[in-house]
Amino acid sequence: MQSDQLVKQIEFLKEIDKLKYIQRKTKLFNSDRNENDAEHSWHLAMMAIILAQHSNTTIDLLKVLKMLLIHDIVEIDAGDTFIYDTQKSHTNTDQERLAAERIFGLLPAEQAAEYMGIWEEFEESQTDEAKFARSMDRLEPLLQNASNNGGTWQEFDVDYAKVYEKKQVIQNGSTAIWEYAEQVLNDSVERGILKKNR
Amino acid sequence: MQSDQLVKQIEFLKEIDKLKYIQRKTKLFNSDRNENDAEHSWHLAMMAIILAQHSNTTIDLLKVLKMLLIHDIVEIDAGDTFIYDTQKSHTNTDQERLAAERIFGLLPAEQAAEYMGIWEEFEESQTDEAKFARSMDRLEPLLQNASNNGGTWQEFDVDYAKVYEKKQVIQNGSTAIWEYAEQVLNDSVERGILKKNR
Repeated sequence: MQSDQLVKQIEFLKEIDKLKYIQRKTKLFNSDRNENDAEHSWHLAMMAIILAQHSNTTIDLLKVLKMLLIHDIVEIDAGDTFIYDTQKSHTNTDQERLAAERIFGLLPAEQAAEYMGIWEEFEESQTDEAKFARSMDRLEPLLQNASNNGGTWQEFDVDYAKVYEKKQVIQNGSTAIWEYAEQVLNDSVERGILKKNR
Repeated sequence: MQSDQLVKQIEFLKEIDKLKYIQRKTKLFNSDRNENDAEHSWHLAMMAIILAQHSNTTIDLLKVLKMLLIHDIVEIDAGDTFIYDTQKSHTNTDQERLAAERIFGLLPAEQAAEYMGIWEEFEESQTDEAKFARSMDRLEPLLQNASNNGGTWQEFDVDYAKVYEKKQVIQNGSTAIWEYAEQVLNDSVERGILKKNR
């Protein structure tokens, strides 16, 4: 029984290797090389363990880490959706749900249900853990763009108001981190790498 | 005070982006593309959350995840040391210690001490958490090499006895996973992708 479970778990772990090939629009820090989803997921997990003290509420950090490690696995089938894409909704498309069912479905049944639940919890952004995880997911590309002379803000002509709208959910996870992020956005406007219509 | 801490933490989080450029000898699954340390660290963290039930003992999974997420950060300064390198010891060189002090030293003092401790705990492989984390670190490249017609075993002419010697520490973390791994090694000998002197 344990051995059957292990075989399924290893198959899942081999399948998710494909996350390393999914390219994001955002570039690495001070770089013109695109980040991939596995690197991104590692970085968000690191951010969570280092920044957890700034959460607005006491959180279950292990749950947050599970969320961040798996949150983009659906993109193996569904591909990366760019946050400023105006044609396509970012969250929880039918395609992503099918992907979650297929990929987490490789796991033993009980574990498959656990990780479907964790993925849905992240997508819905209602619990304290999901809010903090989401704030990590919004912060990383903001820092990357600021290090890359505007990065995707410049590349896709996204202005301050649009960025602010997407990034303000950071405060649902951490007001302290949001204060920091707002300062980075204001500095970016000052530096002329983020356009603000006055 | 909190804000001072946050500034230091963000500097650390930017610095460790460099882990994404550190190439390992091992290739991705069914691939000829080298894995980098950030991808590797993400994959080991995924293995730990999925395989935790097979640990020989009850473990603090959050501690294991912190270990795996940070275990290779020293390679930003010290570079990747290949496990079958006969010229250079794999563990805890002076260069790695200096790297740990520099990089974790970017964090606020209390957190710097915490992560130095976690890194040392992993390196020493004495606690239950470190043993399980180590078993993940040994399992991933074994599975990758088996998927790549022998991978680094073939490329660097490493035989079964040498592989067995390095991999048997997996049983210190999980006898169930070690049984599985031994089977993969035996299958690899049968398939002619791992040389066994009889």
